[in-house]
Amino acid sequence: DPTGDALAAAAAASSLVFLGTGCSGALPDARCLIQPSAPPCTVCSQALSLPPDRNPNYRCNTSLLIDYCHDNDTHKYILIAVGKTFREQVLRWFVHHKVPSVDSIILTHDHADAVLGLVDVWVVQSSNHRNDVDDQVAVFLTQFTMDSVAARFPYFVKRELEEGDETARLDWTIIESDVNKPFVSSGLEFVPLPVMHGEGYVCLGFLFGRKARVAYLSDVSRILPRTEISVTKTC
Amino acid sequence: DPTGDALAAAAAASSLVFLGTGCSGALPDARCLIQPSAPPCTVCSQALSLPPDRNPNYRCNTSLLIDYCHDNDTHKYILIAVGKTFREQVLRWFVHHKVPSVDSIILTHDHADAVLGLVDVWVVQSSNHRNDVDDQVAVFLTQFTMDSVAARFPYFVKRELEEGDETARLDWTIIESDVNKPFVSSGLEFVPLPVMHGEGYVCLGFLFGRKARVAYLSDVSRILPRTEISVTKTC
Repeated sequence: DPTGDALAAAAAASSLVFLGTGCSGALPDARCLIQPSAPPCTVCSQALSLPPDRNPNYRCNTSLLIDYCHDNDTHKYILIAVGKTFREQVLRWFVHHKVPSVDSIILTHDHADAVLGLVDVWVVQSSNHRNDVDDQVAVFLTQFTMDSVAARFPYFVKRELEEGDETARLDWTIIESDVNKPFVSSGLEFVPLPVMHGEGYVCLGFLFGRKARVAYLSDVSRILPRTEISVTKTC
Repeated sequence: DPTGDALAAAAAASSLVFLGTGCSGALPDARCLIQPSAPPCTVCSQALSLPPDRNPNYRCNTSLLIDYCHDNDTHKYILIAVGKTFREQVLRWFVHHKVPSVDSIILTHDHADAVLGLVDVWVVQSSNHRNDVDDQVAVFLTQFTMDSVAARFPYFVKRELEEGDETARLDWTIIESDVNKPFVSSGLEFVPLPVMHGEGYVCLGFLFGRKARVAYLSDVSRILPRTEISVTKTC
């Protein structure tokens, strides 16, 4: 059964799901629709008229889901960035690709379009037993981003949750903005790729993958020489 | 032309747009779709299959838009609560009802499902001249909510915005949780209706309207006696 073989091979493979490739405000830009120009913006008009899988113009905040398959049958779901539009991304793409849950999250920087979806992560936890330590979602982030998230969402870092709290149970791990300090998330190794996101602000991209090497840079205005050297040497 | 008269009358009338009547997590609940029960939840399944205007099952965070028409031809748009799903609500309902912008915002309390959409308010400002004081959106909120918002989003309260900042230009007014302290937002008077939202936490509802009196309570577990007396006396 060649069709069955192909399906089995696909099911046993890793894949990348681009949950979003849009700007911080996402597309459609509501201004194009409620304060339309003459003639109206066709990109934003079309964004509301087509279903998700045939619609390149509905673009949520930049975010990547890695469906990491190892040992041929175990899938781990690793999310890079969880922005303002995370709920929409779950409804559009988790449902479409039959992604049941998220195992770990890697944060790139502390802007709203990269972290604000943390408030909705509880819906993609693997279990409803959210006070069970085994069901925590691992989150990897710099100390700078940790401090920012803790200031905005103190309830994420307090130890005790009340019964019925609609809050994800998260397990925080601090990483460094250093190409020489790789870390392992859900069994997969990631090399941090510090880049400038506007001068004076560092954002992290990540280098990962065993069979194929992938460098993922979501927000970058200038690539640092040491980051470029690291990517060139290992890809 | 009776049809024309009816349209003109409708255009010159105030109206209420319920932007959301859902729970804090909104509907559909992504868990019903990515970790479906047997049999699957029909409400959440249907929520993805119908267009907005025929879909009672796609319910965003609780929020009310008051289209306040005075002097027969001037419309002011007043928003009560601006939650996590505000972007979706703009795309679904502002476009459908041809709402061009928001003039003022009233906050009920500081939870994410009532305030987090502040990060997207800049798209519904009336002008792109967002550093013009005349184009600020007035926001009414208690000191408690102000302190919470300022801690989460310090860039909303700093005075100087940089060119190109995707940040709403907001003008904050502190109100009191007191039925005897009405305030005026975009020309319409509102009476605060303090209610308990869980014991130990006060949320505000509001009483408003000239021809018809409307009491809007979005999150309430127990109505306080003084609030009930106030509503009973004036409705």
